[in-house]
Amino acid sequence: MFGIWGHPQASRIAYYALHSLQHRGQEGTGLVVTDGVSLQGRKGEGLVTDIFTVQSMAELKGFAAIGHVRYSLGGSDGYENVQPLLFRSTSGSLALCHNGNLLNGAQLRRELEEQGSIFQTSSDSEVLAHLIRRSRLPSLKEQVKYALSLLEGAYAFLLLTEKELVAALDPRGMRPLSLGRLGDAYVIASETCAFDIIGAEFERDVLPGELIVIGEQGLHTEMLTAAPRRTLCAMEYVYFARQDSNLDGINVHTARKGLGRQLARECPVEADVVTGVPDSSLSAAIGYAEELRIPYEMGLVKSRYVGRTFIEPTPTLREQGVKLKLSAVRGVVEGKRVALVDDSFVRGTTGRRIIGLLKEAGAKEVHMLIGSPPIKFPCFYGIDLLSTSELIAANHDVEEMRQIIGADSLHFISEEGMRMVLGSGLCLSCFTGNYPTAVPKA
Amino acid sequence: MFGIWGHPQASRIAYYALHSLQHRGQEGTGLVVTDGVSLQGRKGEGLVTDIFTVQSMAELKGFAAIGHVRYSLGGSDGYENVQPLLFRSTSGSLALCHNGNLLNGAQLRRELEEQGSIFQTSSDSEVLAHLIRRSRLPSLKEQVKYALSLLEGAYAFLLLTEKELVAALDPRGMRPLSLGRLGDAYVIASETCAFDIIGAEFERDVLPGELIVIGEQGLHTEMLTAAPRRTLCAMEYVYFARQDSNLDGINVHTARKGLGRQLARECPVEADVVTGVPDSSLSAAIGYAEELRIPYEMGLVKSRYVGRTFIEPTPTLREQGVKLKLSAVRGVVEGKRVALVDDSFVRGTTGRRIIGLLKEAGAKEVHMLIGSPPIKFPCFYGIDLLSTSELIAANHDVEEMRQIIGADSLHFISEEGMRMVLGSGLCLSCFTGNYPTAVPKA
Amino acid sequence: MFGIWGHPQASRIAYYALHSLQHRGQEGTGLVVTDGVSLQGRKGEGLVTDIFTVQSMAELKGFAAIGHVRYSLGGSDGYENVQPLLFRSTSGSLALCHNGNLLNGAQLRRELEEQGSIFQTSSDSEVLAHLIRRSRLPSLKEQVKYALSLLEGAYAFLLLTEKELVAALDPRGMRPLSLGRLGDAYVIASETCAFDIIGAEFERDVLPGELIVIGEQGLHTEMLTAAPRRTLCAMEYVYFARQDSNLDGINVHTARKGLGRQLARECPVEADVVTGVPDSSLSAAIGYAEELRIPYEMGLVKSRYVGRTFIEPTPTLREQGVKLKLSAVRGVVEGKRVALVDDSFVRGTTGRRIIGLLKEAGAKEVHMLIGSPPIKFPCFYGIDLLSTSELIAANHDVEEMRQIIGADSLHFISEEGMRMVLGSGLCLSCFTGNYPTAVPKA
Amino acid sequence: MFGIWGHPQASRIAYYALHSLQHRGQEGTGLVVTDGVSLQGRKGEGLVTDIFTVQSMAELKGFAAIGHVRYSLGGSDGYENVQPLLFRSTSGSLALCHNGNLLNGAQLRRELEEQGSIFQTSSDSEVLAHLIRRSRLPSLKEQVKYALSLLEGAYAFLLLTEKELVAALDPRGMRPLSLGRLGDAYVIASETCAFDIIGAEFERDVLPGELIVIGEQGLHTEMLTAAPRRTLCAMEYVYFARQDSNLDGINVHTARKGLGRQLARECPVEADVVTGVPDSSLSAAIGYAEELRIPYEMGLVKSRYVGRTFIEPTPTLREQGVKLKLSAVRGVVEGKRVALVDDSFVRGTTGRRIIGLLKEAGAKEVHMLIGSPPIKFPCFYGIDLLSTSELIAANHDVEEMRQIIGADSLHFISEEGMRMVLGSGLCLSCFTGNYPTAVPKA
Repeated sequence: MFGIWGHPQASRIAYYALHSLQHRGQEGTGLVVTDGVSLQGRKGEGLVTDIFTVQSMAELKGFAAIGHVRYSLGGSDGYENVQPLLFRSTSGSLALCHNGNLLNGAQLRRELEEQGSIFQTSSDSEVLAHLIRRSRLPSLKEQVKYALSLLEGAYAFLLLTEKELVAALDPRGMRPLSLGRLGDAYVIASETCAFDIIGAEFERDVLPGELIVIGEQGLHTEMLTAAPRRTLCAMEYVYFARQDSNLDGINVHTARKGLGRQLARECPVEADVVTGVPDSSLSAAIGYAEELRIPYEMGLVKSRYVGRTFIEPTPTLREQGVKLKLSAVRGVVEGKRVALVDDSFVRGTTGRRIIGLLKEAGAKEVHMLIGSPPIKFPCFYGIDLLSTSELIAANHDVEEMRQIIGADSLHFISEEGMRMVLGSGLCLSCFTGNYPTAVPKA
Repeated sequence: MFGIWGHPQASRIAYYALHSLQHRGQEGTGLVVTDGVSLQGRKGEGLVTDIFTVQSMAELKGFAAIGHVRYSLGGSDGYENVQPLLFRSTSGSLALCHNGNLLNGAQLRRELEEQGSIFQTSSDSEVLAHLIRRSRLPSLKEQVKYALSLLEGAYAFLLLTEKELVAALDPRGMRPLSLGRLGDAYVIASETCAFDIIGAEFERDVLPGELIVIGEQGLHTEMLTAAPRRTLCAMEYVYFARQDSNLDGINVHTARKGLGRQLARECPVEADVVTGVPDSSLSAAIGYAEELRIPYEMGLVKSRYVGRTFIEPTPTLREQGVKLKLSAVRGVVEGKRVALVDDSFVRGTTGRRIIGLLKEAGAKEVHMLIGSPPIKFPCFYGIDLLSTSELIAANHDVEEMRQIIGADSLHFISEEGMRMVLGSGLCLSCFTGNYPTAVPKA
Repeated sequence: MFGIWGHPQASRIAYYALHSLQHRGQEGTGLVVTDGVSLQGRKGEGLVTDIFTVQSMAELKGFAAIGHVRYSLGGSDGYENVQPLLFRSTSGSLALCHNGNLLNGAQLRRELEEQGSIFQTSSDSEVLAHLIRRSRLPSLKEQVKYALSLLEGAYAFLLLTEKELVAALDPRGMRPLSLGRLGDAYVIASETCAFDIIGAEFERDVLPGELIVIGEQGLHTEMLTAAPRRTLCAMEYVYFARQDSNLDGINVHTARKGLGRQLARECPVEADVVTGVPDSSLSAAIGYAEELRIPYEMGLVKSRYVGRTFIEPTPTLREQGVKLKLSAVRGVVEGKRVALVDDSFVRGTTGRRIIGLLKEAGAKEVHMLIGSPPIKFPCFYGIDLLSTSELIAANHDVEEMRQIIGADSLHFISEEGMRMVLGSGLCLSCFTGNYPTAVPKA
Repeated sequence: MFGIWGHPQASRIAYYALHSLQHRGQEGTGLVVTDGVSLQGRKGEGLVTDIFTVQSMAELKGFAAIGHVRYSLGGSDGYENVQPLLFRSTSGSLALCHNGNLLNGAQLRRELEEQGSIFQTSSDSEVLAHLIRRSRLPSLKEQVKYALSLLEGAYAFLLLTEKELVAALDPRGMRPLSLGRLGDAYVIASETCAFDIIGAEFERDVLPGELIVIGEQGLHTEMLTAAPRRTLCAMEYVYFARQDSNLDGINVHTARKGLGRQLARECPVEADVVTGVPDSSLSAAIGYAEELRIPYEMGLVKSRYVGRTFIEPTPTLREQGVKLKLSAVRGVVEGKRVALVDDSFVRGTTGRRIIGLLKEAGAKEVHMLIGSPPIKFPCFYGIDLLSTSELIAANHDVEEMRQIIGADSLHFISEEGMRMVLGSGLCLSCFTGNYPTAVPKA
């Protein structure tokens, strides 16, 4: 998500920024701008380039904007869940974007509904807006502080009214959020790659538990929590963020490459070539190859097809072999022992399919190397991991998994190894089951 | 607006019905369907053929639907005001369409906002949904009854939940609403022309003050008011409805032609040809011509251009004479005395422009004949009439108006004449200032 | 088709003009412009509003243009047949539009192909361009004159090069073509309604056998034939042209109304209402009603649906009664004796369907009145009439036809009556079999 | 370009194949299919996903197809130049695609025009079709043989008629073309990556000077030249082809990596990181890094934005720093000595811009390493190299070029080094000036 305050072409800038954040969600996107008098928005299901047109940019006039790309948490979808959500009242409008997941969202929602509140969406993100409106406190800042004090879980919020832009991060800073400057304008983004594309300067990361309010008076900041402690989601490094972003000061490509090197130290295999699963695993694969001095090769190619206009192959054509997302490069892997590096291991189905492609293309052996530990526990903080029953590592040991995916060997980086590379201030709960907050029982 | 219950292709049927109702609003359109488990919707700013695609129809699967075409009441626009509005709650969803105008809408909204309610739109139509949710009554029917009892003004509502379709009409029946059957399915539409296009049978008009609930148990009806009395908006006959619809049992074309005949009896002019302003005034013009045995001719032609894809002329081209909406037919009017029939007279600007076109095309005289009395008072019931200061007839007498528009003579049908043609059960308040309800002071 | 020379926004003007000529062909449209240096074009299958976008208009920069709307003559279709056709050569480019039909087109084409010519299209219109290029004469005017001298049949041509705009009409002037002025620019159009929409002044009709060349030196004209004689296609009056156009100085609406009046004199029926088949038969119906003093009513309504974005009903929905093009208005026709006026009678299928609709809607009797004589002979000049075997009047007498369509009576205007209304300088060959040229035997 | 014969969904298969060949041309694309009776086509300016829709695929029914992606040779553009070109004649239709460049194309065209031939396009590719039609030989195969015998230059042709698919390669095989099987169907493609995406099996490369005719009788092949000798364009390896294709049996990624390794042996630099210009230089950069054991890093990121729907930044926004195509990753390059590997060096402008980006992002030194020798001579065989005056290496020595682009050092692989990696059967004329054919003087 992205916010900007103080630029005459706020919606255009936001468009490019959202475009650079597209990898964080492909299901929908939206943008709300203000000209100081009213809020206007546009949103839809699809990619940034599907939803926004030259005309819609021209209509979204204003000096401030917030925008979002939607990543669905296995929940029910639909147009109305695309953010920013927009709320109208006689005293002014409010737009809201949320990354993360609220642990007590459903319960708060039930309570609000019992008091007569109506929701536009099936998403719990909307709870914040209702709490704000019900707070009856004099200023937006106080309203938001009160409302946030009731929330538990992981969140990065952006709010926009006619007069103010608000950013808030949960007390553990589980989701990334950074602050920058574009000339005199303020910009806030989930990842720093959004600053690079628009030519903005990175200023600093938003702090865990920080509340930022930007308005006519400039930027004001306040800490919501006494002793905040960053516990950034490790999966952001592993596969979610873009390789040219910096998270908590660490470049994502460098972090991934470090994971690959560490993996090589822990689990060296005998191989003729190293190849990675595009795109998020390439850095780890390069690190693995460099450390072991095995040639890194492009053994897999990913097709770039895009947006709503692409004509999907019929099931018949798929069966006949039309394979669009990934194909193995025979000229690279034929007759070779392949070290295949992937970033993570969730259900095992992708791994099995890729190993199949490589073997069909003539690979003699395929050794699978995973740049993160086995995922054994569900995530409650905004990553769409499956329930325990679907997590292959929650139900099988490594040898069973190896057999299931048809690899010649299967290796994971250790938790300790991961910590050595990425540091200790991370949420590793999906690997360890040690959650940084209380979590639901079921 | 249109609703259907009990048809396997509910969204497709609604698409065609909304298409036939397009004349009631061109600013936006939406559709919500249910499959009994959840509600799904799609809406947008534009025409029915702009917003719905084959794909969106395929995605909107269900056996019941409600849809709307948006006609904006001078209010602020925007995507979120396009109906049906959709409300989500843990106990089920609710979709809502509204035609008309609530007199106490703004006040109810303020009260609800003070109690912490959040609105998605700037439209008062949303009030009904909040009142329903806050009622705490056990059944939807009772909730709706309670909520409607708080509303004042003109309304036709359609509501859809996963289990029920509800239609309601205000106690005076100021806006039209009809009930029909399409095989086993029930259909409800603002105008009967929607039934014709889908091959449905007209059953009856919804009664003033009637509440209809359709669900698994079939159709149930109930009267909300002891002594309802139909006071249908006269402007529906005059220009709003489509000529092939029947309102209160009277065909609209026939009604308009009757107005034209009556106008001829009251205000015969000496003319060589009669022509009408397309499309809504053609019937009245034909009636006028028939009564006076003056030839009816097509002296004005209206271009059919449509939808978002049309390229509007630049201001320069307009000045140079590119005139798209209406053009006068020189071959018909040159050297002739023209009786020009229009349906109504609001600001006078259209009249002046058309008279200019006719004179440029060589008309010797232009006599303007209006098929409704002078509009002197604002409407509070859902027709977008201007404030008193903009209504030409509120500020000028007939001779002044004649001079302003440049006509050789100007004539209006009398109120009495209109009543003779259309009967007495009509709201004529914009002509007379006699409002059927209490109205705001300002 | 439409041409313009000498306007800085030639493509925009052409866009509006083509839009007003859309009724002459809905299968495709194209536009070629010149800026004096090169020709650029855009074309496609669909309506004017489908094919041209703001962007394509911006790209088509130039001071002169020709454009076309495609009406297919039962021939094979396809993108490449959409006109203007564009020919490139090292010495300059040539664009070409054609209305009409060449009697010796196929033979000339065979001869050219035998000499090694390659065609881009399956249309004979392309022959002219080849003849021009093969002529080896020094000026475009002489080349065109030579090429036209080889053609037989009906044609209106527009040609555009980087330096000249050429218009030509066959020696009988069977297809309409008019010349006008828009400020300093010259405009040429198939119908005068194109002039009205762009604010141009009608100057005169292009003469039979006239060749017009417009270039830097202004407009030059030349007669290709010694004794030209206008033999305009009667079907242009009957249904092809738009009612606000003038053909040969006669307004089309007025001509049609005259046909209706004459029909009333020849074949009065006892009826309660007169109704016409929209849109082309309304004028005749009004004339018929006026003459007999029977009320003219809107007993049939035509839906306005448009372009590529309209979702066609599935066959199942059609069977269930979704009827989009035409519907009968029960409120108008129920219990009535209906005089149904149509402009022409080709296969009888439309008549049968409409009579069915009217009877379903409660009409007591339906008398069918046709504003042209029975069509018994094929057209060789550019109207898509069927082969003799499909023309109902070529194979059945009036009583048989009446039974086939289910009318209570069936009447046609006489040839003599038509001549009285439209004058004698017309091609009536589809009614009489008297062709103004030699025609193929088969 | 791509051809298929003998598959019930020929157009769909071609769609996916063209999609995988999109890198070979982004200006336009087209597809022609045959069902044995006629040819039908669709083409347009834009990407494969812009031009083809589900509907257009459904309309293009047939068992054989040829398709093309357009790469413009600095020539004049426009819709009609998009291939396949389509020619109609009474004896059947012909569609044509061409890759390459004809040395005597302009002269043959002039001769044909003098004989009265008309061209649809400004492209010389059309010459072949005219020569075929004028040959008067009895079979298509003989016609094509005759026509090809008149052509000089580089070409790969695909032709399609209702009955046959023809592929032809010039006697030096300067452009790549491969043959494969998809079940019983034959497929022909410019690159083998098209076979992988559709699940086809690579059979063999088309031979220099080979003519292949596929029809009802199966596949027939014939050599047009006595002593053909493959002289494949080196730039195909250097940057044109996709890294997962094999050219002449050599995988492109492997070839590029080999160039990078050789470059490292010839020109090792002292650097902290190696980075490549995405996408075509990544393989060479990896090879360079591997050979020198310097870490390979992602110091540059390329945005994926696509097709017509992308909203280009305004010039103002560009000046303010919105940089879309490429951005430097500060976290990777800050404070580092960067070895920047690019595949080729044409004008030097891209190099200068990238070095600027890297230095702005904090790079301490930037050493530029080019995986091909300096380009000093124009290409006459289908690669869009500039005229000599624009080729930086034709006018400056290495030190001057280094200064112009602002690099700390600049190095090129040697011709000898390139030959060692890629073998000797290549056209290196743009590096050496030794052209394999006679070439024009100017």
